Formats: sequence, C-alpha cells, structure tokens
Amino acid sequence: MNYEQIIQSTIKSNNSKIVLLVLDGVGDIRSPKFKNKTPLEYAHTPNLDKLAKASVTGRMHPILPGITPGSGPGHLGLFGYDPMYHTIGRGVLEAVGIGFELKSYDVAARCNFATMNDAGLIIDRRAGRIPTETTIELCNILKSIKEIDGVEIIIKPGKGHRFVTIFRSKEKEIGSMINDIDPLVEGKAPLTAIGKNPPSQFLANVINQFIKEGYALLKDKSPANAFLMRGIASKPKIASMRDKYLLESAAIATYPMYRGIASLLGMTLLPAPDSIEGLFETYINAHNKYDFFFIHVKGTDQAGEDGNFDSKVSCIEKVDKALPIILENKPDVLAITADHSSPCAMRSHSWHPIPILIHSQFAGVDDVKVFHENACSNGGLGFFESKYLMGILLANAKRLDKFGA
Amino acid sequence: MNYEQIIQSTIKSNNSKIVLLVLDGVGDIRSPKFKNKTPLEYAHTPNLDKLAKASVTGRMHPILPGITPGSGPGHLGLFGYDPMYHTIGRGVLEAVGIGFELKSYDVAARCNFATMNDAGLIIDRRAGRIPTETTIELCNILKSIKEIDGVEIIIKPGKGHRFVTIFRSKEKEIGSMINDIDPLVEGKAPLTAIGKNPPSQFLANVINQFIKEGYALLKDKSPANAFLMRGIASKPKIASMRDKYLLESAAIATYPMYRGIASLLGMTLLPAPDSIEGLFETYINAHNKYDFFFIHVKGTDQAGEDGNFDSKVSCIEKVDKALPIILENKPDVLAITADHSSPCAMRSHSWHPIPILIHSQFAGVDDVKVFHENACSNGGLGFFESKYLMGILLANAKRLDKFGA
Repeated sequence: MNYEQIIQSTIKSNNSKIVLLVLDGVGDIRSPKFKNKTPLEYAHTPNLDKLAKASVTGRMHPILPGITPGSGPGHLGLFGYDPMYHTIGRGVLEAVGIGFELKSYDVAARCNFATMNDAGLIIDRRAGRIPTETTIELCNILKSIKEIDGVEIIIKPGKGHRFVTIFRSKEKEIGSMINDIDPLVEGKAPLTAIGKNPPSQFLANVINQFIKEGYALLKDKSPANAFLMRGIASKPKIASMRDKYLLESAAIATYPMYRGIASLLGMTLLPAPDSIEGLFETYINAHNKYDFFFIHVKGTDQAGEDGNFDSKVSCIEKVDKALPIILENKPDVLAITADHSSPCAMRSHSWHPIPILIHSQFAGVDDVKVFHENACSNGGLGFFESKYLMGILLANAKRLDKFGA
Repeated sequence: MNYEQIIQSTIKSNNSKIVLLVLDGVGDIRSPKFKNKTPLEYAHTPNLDKLAKASVTGRMHPILPGITPGSGPGHLGLFGYDPMYHTIGRGVLEAVGIGFELKSYDVAARCNFATMNDAGLIIDRRAGRIPTETTIELCNILKSIKEIDGVEIIIKPGKGHRFVTIFRSKEKEIGSMINDIDPLVEGKAPLTAIGKNPPSQFLANVINQFIKEGYALLKDKSPANAFLMRGIASKPKIASMRDKYLLESAAIATYPMYRGIASLLGMTLLPAPDSIEGLFETYINAHNKYDFFFIHVKGTDQAGEDGNFDSKVSCIEKVDKALPIILENKPDVLAITADHSSPCAMRSHSWHPIPILIHSQFAGVDDVKVFHENACSNGGLGFFESKYLMGILLANAKRLDKFGA
C-alpha cells in the first residue's frame, strides 16, 4: 500500500475547515546582494510571528532535494497529488493557464508563431517575438479553420507569440500520444505529427491537415508565416479533491494558471479580487460553504522572479497585515507555506526547502517563534516532501482514521 | 535494491546486545489544557536527561507524515518491517492479542455476538454490548462445534461481546481470502462467506456451516442469538528476527497484543512482571541469553488514551527512576522511543513524530541535553521513518557490513 492508498483507506468526513494559504515562491535564501537576510527574515511580520509562536513549523521539499518545480508540480504536491506520478501535460497547463475550461474529451497543444523560409525550414521559432496584439490578429485568421474530420478546432491566443489549440471531439475518441511538431532547433523543418495508437493516429492526421491549412492561411504574413506545436496532451484523469479527500474545495486565486490547476482538481473557483485583503475577505464570505480553501498569493513569486527584494518584503508585510482577516473566522486547520522558493538572487524558481507553518488545536507547538526559512529548520515537523502536507492537514482536521489495528 | 534488501545483504552476527525500550504512545503535544508542556517536557527525568546528554536523538514518523498507526503497524515499523507492505490481518492481531499461539496453518477471525430479528436481519451488531461473562458462557455453548469437514474449530472469548474463532487445518490447506460476514450496518442480514481461491472456498464453506450450526445453538438466547465475523486472516508469512537480522530476540511485555506481535516475529516471550522495575530486571536476568531485547511499557499509552496527563508524567518518572537497572548491564546499543504518539489532549493514537534516543559507543552525541519531543527535533538523527530504526541499531551494534565496495 502506498501513501495515497493509505490516505484513501483512512479518509473520513466531518465539519472541519482547512485553509491552505500559498505565498507563491516566498521561500528565499540569504544573499549579500540583499542584506544577508531572506525577505521573510527581513520583513516586519508581527502577526505571522504571533501565529508561529502558537503553531508547529517545518520545511518542505517541493518534490525531492535539489528539484526545482514548475507551478504545476509545485501545486500538485501541495494538494497531495504526488508530482512525480501525476503529471499535467504542457498543452493542458497552457490551456487552463489562459482560463480555458477543458472537457474530458479535449486535447490541448501549446503553439507559437514562427518564421519559415522558402525551403520550408524554421528560421525563427518565435517569429521575432511578435507582440500579443499581432498574435490575436493571426489567431483570428486561423480561427477560420473550424473543424477537420469532425474534430472541432478551438484557438486561444496567449501572451507574446504564444497560443493554444484545443482539439475537441465528442463523437470519436482522440488521443494525445503524439510527438512535438516543433523541431526545437532552428534550421529544420517542422516535424510531421505521428500518433502512437489509433486514437492518436486519428488526431495526428487532423493536426497535419490543420498545419497544412494554417500555413496556407499565413503564407503571406511576415514575420509569422508558420506556427509550431508541442506538449500535445489530454486532460489528465485525476481524482478530484472531493473523490480523493471527501473535501468540498474552493480556490481563491487571481491568476489563470492557479485557477486552472484548481479547476482540474475539481475545486470551485471563487471570484478573487486583486488585493490580499480581498482574497482573505473572499474566504470569510464563503467560509461556511466549503471544507477546504486554497488561497493563492502571487506577488511573492513575481517579486522573486524580478529579483525585487523590496517588493517581496512589501508583499509579505501586506499578507501579515491582512492575516487577522482570516483569523476572524479561524479555520480548524490553517497552513501557510509556498509551492516552491523563488530567491531574489536567482530571479527564478528554485529547489530550496520552503517554510511551513501549521496552526490547529492538535498540531502542537514547537520552539520556533518567527516564521522564516532558517527558524523553521528547527521546527517540530522537520523536513519533509510537500506531497505529505495534505495528509498532515487532514490528520489535524481529524479526517483520517487510524491505519491498521 | 530496496532498504530491507540492503540490510539483508550486509547483515552479520557478533556478540553485541541491543535493547529497544518502547514507551508506548509516549509522544505528545503541548496543549493549553495541560500546562503547555508535553508529559516528557514536564516530567522530572534526571536519568533520561543524563542519558540524552551522552546520546544522539531525533524524531521518527511511525509510518509517514500525517498517518496515525495502530499498534500493529507501529510496532512492525520499529522492528524494521515496513508497515506499508507487511500487514497483519485483524483476525490474527485479535488472536495473538488474547495470547493465542497461532500455527502456520491457522486462520483466525474476529467475531462478535449480535442480535438478529425473526426476519434474519441484524438489529444490534453488538448484542447490547453483553458483558465478558456472558460472552464466556455463549462461547462455551459454541465450543460444542469442534470440527467441520476436518477443520478444527477453536473458540476463544475476548472482552465484552467479542471473541475469536481459529480454524485449524493441518491436513488440507485453508485460505483466508474471504469476505467479512458482518454486514457492518444494522438492518441487514449477515453475508455469506465466499472464498476467492480454492483453499479459501473450502474454508468459506466451513464458515457458512459453522454459522448455520452456531446460530441454531444460540437461537433461544437473548439478546445474543447470532454472531458476526470479520478480518478473516491467515498467520502472516513474515521472516523472523532471527532470519532477517540473525538476532536471537526476546520480548519483555505484559500485554498480550505486544507479546503476540513479538511472537509473530519469532521473539522469545520472557515472563514479564507488572512493574517497570520488574520489566527491567527481567532484562538483567536474561541479558546474556539474547542479542535483542524488546521492552514494552504500556502505561504511557494508556494514560494518553485516558487523557490523563498526570498519570503519563508519573509513568515517565517511574521509567526514569528504574532506568539505572538497565544501565547496570548497559547493552551495546540502547534505544528509547515509542511506537506512536498518544497525546493526552487527543485521547487517542496520533501521527505526531516520536522522540528517539540512541545510546551506544558509536552513536555519537548531539547538542540535545534532555529527552523530549521538541528537544529531539534538533537532534543528530533528524526526522526519519521508524522503519529505518532497526538499521541504525544494527549499524551501532556493528552488525552491518559496508554496502558496496
């Protein structure tokens, strides 16, 4: 029996409420470039510190030591879906990331406009990084291709030169075991789509036809006279939070990517205002309608990726200031953590263990008195992989029976 | 190669002695209900603290984070039998729990007396929770059924309305892939036993006949005119401590459940007096006859399950006071820990990581100067799963060779 099976065999329902507050990318490292303190160490956070004094803390590896997760695996881990086994295809992430609601019979592909020479070789895989507006215009042209062999073609522009194509087939099964069309290097021709099984072969033919018709429509355009496709993926067959944990779950997140991941797990998407107070007030207003709340704060990650220490500190202080709003209707279990670190000194996601704080009647209290990375290293939860977090939260909510007699 | 295989490939024998002292359920959490200290923090334990100063410490997850183990999985983990893969059936645990010595060809089932109405539906699955004395009388009636189709029927009363039935078949193989007879809800008829393979089909027929004959014997009794059966299980095929670790092992435990688990692993059961001094003196008297001693103290768990903080503290202090007895003949490796936590504030087993202390010539010494949960969070062993403990003890006993060249 593996971990997820133990959870499944011991799960039960009750009236408890769980709030998981994710400060995206909040984990950081001390750097001489930034006062030799992490943003969590540097920020003035009286409310977080007060909470830490009455909580148990620790640190989590988003995946395993040394592995830097993308947003998909980072969040799957937090929700207890082992990110090494449950994967969400890039096409699907891209589609849900722009707010598209996928059906079970959809296949999605990441696409980008490109420049092709007369010999049919790709000479710029990003078509000179054309702006979003141009991509919208070109997508409108491609939208004249509405259907091929009974498969509906849905085209959604993204940012810059990127767009998403969704292949929708209610009648006939379509598969996604199909290679990338993108040759990944310049100077080569786009590849032909080949399917590995009959439903994928069927869709591969549709894709090849779509590319032929699409290139014809774009042939006089410059610089974007072609497009490439990769990450062709079906909507994953993944148990909902309801089926997995008997939890009615709600997501309070502003960014489409996180709303998308939440919707793939069957969470209800609540309207989320831009301000942190607004996010927390959304919880207060809905607190008796759901069992589990995923609240997502994006600012910390953005600041980390921009290398903007002051902005990260300021976002943390805003969270701290707004924290009493959540505590007005304190959930039975409150966890505060991140999906991964995004150190300012690195301007990117990273592998560094993230701080975690759990506050509940049965969580226990350790000797950690402030909420930051180095303090949490000495916490009562130790270091663990974030895929175990949901189990700990469910245990604290008394939603797990004893395993074995 | 997995962990257990590495141990197997590197194990060797020598004259070292290992003592594993299990303070059942000693792990706890700070709670405002109980002085904001754990019983281990609150108790006056000069001997344990002195030992901690000369030991290495850490914390163990009995199974994995968030999972609360029953006594079976909790102890299997301590003895290095991965509790996620080695399971002991409920019927077997119940049988060994009342001190019955199972043979390899036995199948055991948990039974309980119940009340059935005229329509053959179970209206009370516990027969009004009849007292143990009534259960003994009713078991004596059922004992007139001594054998069916060559399978010996052995009936052993338990506590309250519970009893155990053991099916013993030396000649013909019997299997235990059989459903529960207990419908698990009231208002339904008992289920028919169905076996999933030929040896189980054979025993299922015996069970159905046993139920028919048994119900006939009880038909005029009230309220217990029926009985139900679940957790039908064979004695597990599990390597003994001798075969797995080349250890001659002895168990010093008063409670049948723990003696039972120890006997399933091939440990010799030493006579165990009720007092903690008595348990430790049993070790002293037998210390040169065995390689490995499992000493089990039940009082800490009982106090936790009763929510009795003072009693838990007092039991810990008794252990502390008696500790010098063990140190009179200090084993090469001494480990003190628990099988799981049983926080007083929860009155039940829990998932919280348990403190562990290892004292040996080669264990090393960390900065932890007292033996309790929060201190051990900073110990030199870190946090790990209890299934790795035996490996660490064997390593300290110099009973493991280098892995690889």
